[in-house]
Amino acid sequence: MSATSPHTDRILMGPGPGNPYPEVIEAFSRPVMGHLDPEFIVLLDETNDRLRQVFRTQNPLTFPVSATGSAGMEATIVNTVGPGDTIVIGINGVFGERMCDVASRCGADVVRVEAEWGMALDQQELLDAHPSPKVIAVVHAETSTGVRNDVTEIGAGKGDSLLLVDCVTSLGGIPLEIDEWGVDLAYSGTQKCLGVPPGISPVTVSAAAIKRFVDRSPSWYLDFSMIAAYVTGGAARAYHHTAPISMIYALHAGLGVVLNEGLENVHARHQACGDRLQAGLVDRGFELFAEEGHRLPELTAVRIPEERLPDGMSEADVRSVLLERYGIEIGGGLGPVAGKVWRIGCMGHTARQRNVTMLLGALDELMV
Amino acid sequence: MSATSPHTDRILMGPGPGNPYPEVIEAFSRPVMGHLDPEFIVLLDETNDRLRQVFRTQNPLTFPVSATGSAGMEATIVNTVGPGDTIVIGINGVFGERMCDVASRCGADVVRVEAEWGMALDQQELLDAHPSPKVIAVVHAETSTGVRNDVTEIGAGKGDSLLLVDCVTSLGGIPLEIDEWGVDLAYSGTQKCLGVPPGISPVTVSAAAIKRFVDRSPSWYLDFSMIAAYVTGGAARAYHHTAPISMIYALHAGLGVVLNEGLENVHARHQACGDRLQAGLVDRGFELFAEEGHRLPELTAVRIPEERLPDGMSEADVRSVLLERYGIEIGGGLGPVAGKVWRIGCMGHTARQRNVTMLLGALDELMV
Repeated sequence: MSATSPHTDRILMGPGPGNPYPEVIEAFSRPVMGHLDPEFIVLLDETNDRLRQVFRTQNPLTFPVSATGSAGMEATIVNTVGPGDTIVIGINGVFGERMCDVASRCGADVVRVEAEWGMALDQQELLDAHPSPKVIAVVHAETSTGVRNDVTEIGAGKGDSLLLVDCVTSLGGIPLEIDEWGVDLAYSGTQKCLGVPPGISPVTVSAAAIKRFVDRSPSWYLDFSMIAAYVTGGAARAYHHTAPISMIYALHAGLGVVLNEGLENVHARHQACGDRLQAGLVDRGFELFAEEGHRLPELTAVRIPEERLPDGMSEADVRSVLLERYGIEIGGGLGPVAGKVWRIGCMGHTARQRNVTMLLGALDELMV
Repeated sequence: MSATSPHTDRILMGPGPGNPYPEVIEAFSRPVMGHLDPEFIVLLDETNDRLRQVFRTQNPLTFPVSATGSAGMEATIVNTVGPGDTIVIGINGVFGERMCDVASRCGADVVRVEAEWGMALDQQELLDAHPSPKVIAVVHAETSTGVRNDVTEIGAGKGDSLLLVDCVTSLGGIPLEIDEWGVDLAYSGTQKCLGVPPGISPVTVSAAAIKRFVDRSPSWYLDFSMIAAYVTGGAARAYHHTAPISMIYALHAGLGVVLNEGLENVHARHQACGDRLQAGLVDRGFELFAEEGHRLPELTAVRIPEERLPDGMSEADVRSVLLERYGIEIGGGLGPVAGKVWRIGCMGHTARQRNVTMLLGALDELMV
């Protein structure tokens, strides 16, 4: 407990991590096993089966990358685009921009398709941007703006291109259909709608994408061809690197919670929390940042009403008071909207109506 | 519990993970905080201070990479060698070979200096291999052979070259003096002698190495220049990627155990376990694989005496029986020594005399 805060725990209503499910924290107490232990392999296989259910895919190559969500992004890109390959990237927030950075380091030709922050990308524009890109990449749920970018038309019209989708903030929070939508590569994080602490990154890769892997990924650690020998190796697993055992226990448990509740029920819970939060904010005169019709329930960006900040307090001060007095974390803006928006998450175990009630109540107490 | 095993837990005496300290598992139950939470930043700073004490360095850029030990290897290499840079790499096992793979993917000119598996590298040979390499890289503790490669002469004679050392299996297990020995870059794992589950990779980087970073690392995720803005950013931390919060709690706790016991005492405990294990194996007619004078106490490779395997059982069968009947994991050999050596670890919380007693007793019961 710090000198300033009556809380040693947090209600995590920022852009992630959200609060983990209690069952997930319990899983951390399981005895650690070796990464080649037959019982661990059973648990890993089960984790990957659960991931397939949540991703809604049959892809055999579905597993958690042994690093956080941004490494999932890097992994999907470094295995598919090399020097001279064209990748079309949709950019309407920080994470589309990050994809460009990652892809350009691979020597890829990056074709940018932009939309204003807060607006959704135009799918046709992405399809028209280049006649035959190797990859078209889109962020499904832009954590920096609260915008949902749809990808179904891209999947339907992509032709020979591979469709790569950032599902960090969408997986487990809103409907996502990897196979039905024609998504070839997707990555996610554990610390958003899956209710697991950050640390590993679920990915799924289609057979078509595997056929078009670059010859030799610039990254050894993220080389999917090598990792596949461990992940999908059947009885004889080839050691690649030591798996993050405890984090996989945690993911296994988090996916168990989600599947026990039922994926549709979990989506509905996120939707209901987001709906009530967004209605409550609008009732209080806040303006939602994301375009109507494309608002994520699990991550809400609102414009900060300068005139309603308490006298002499900046928006950062208000966030500090929320953290110190209430133990509630909400997020500030990133990049061009820093200081202009707040980002409020209701993800995983945080997606409970009582948390919405608490935050709206706290804002009522704080704002003028 | 499986049908074949009376154990749901393991005594982890393979090449890692070892058993975690109980205090580490306890730390996993701490409430998750956000990666920009001021209280988390305090904990991260404290973790990095503890790492500096264990690495025996003053390097400000000392922190855990958000991925396992092999990513620590990749991180130190991709930030320092690019196309046309020369790196001299010592190879006497799997992990030196892995360094070559990683460095060649960066486009570096790799100069190989080899020693027979089981023998230590010749430091003068590494110094003489090239007139002015940018980096000289050595594995301090070869997990594939149980050999300790010394690096003090390289540190003293390196001139303008940077000395990069793999400390995955040495950190916390045997004496290591980053600053005194002139080591510029080092990485480790959590799951060996620090008594923490696998998942993140402590690294430390000298001021001289920072000055010679490549312009733009091929990896965004492992870009030290960008990560430094978060890790050593003072009050204003720039978000790079979401830190693996719970794994950092675990590392913080594991380092706390090590420093409370005292680094020298922890080394002595590893040494005493290794000494007794190795003497016990020799007494039983086993032949140690690593060259005398260069044997790691924390990781012992022994030649498998074929004639003493129980009738009709392979060495893998014996390891399976150890696992199923006793709940003890030991490791097989990698690469050219697969099927020829066992690798027995006494690392972290596993480094207790009672575990040596148990394993030697089990071998007495099993071997003919």
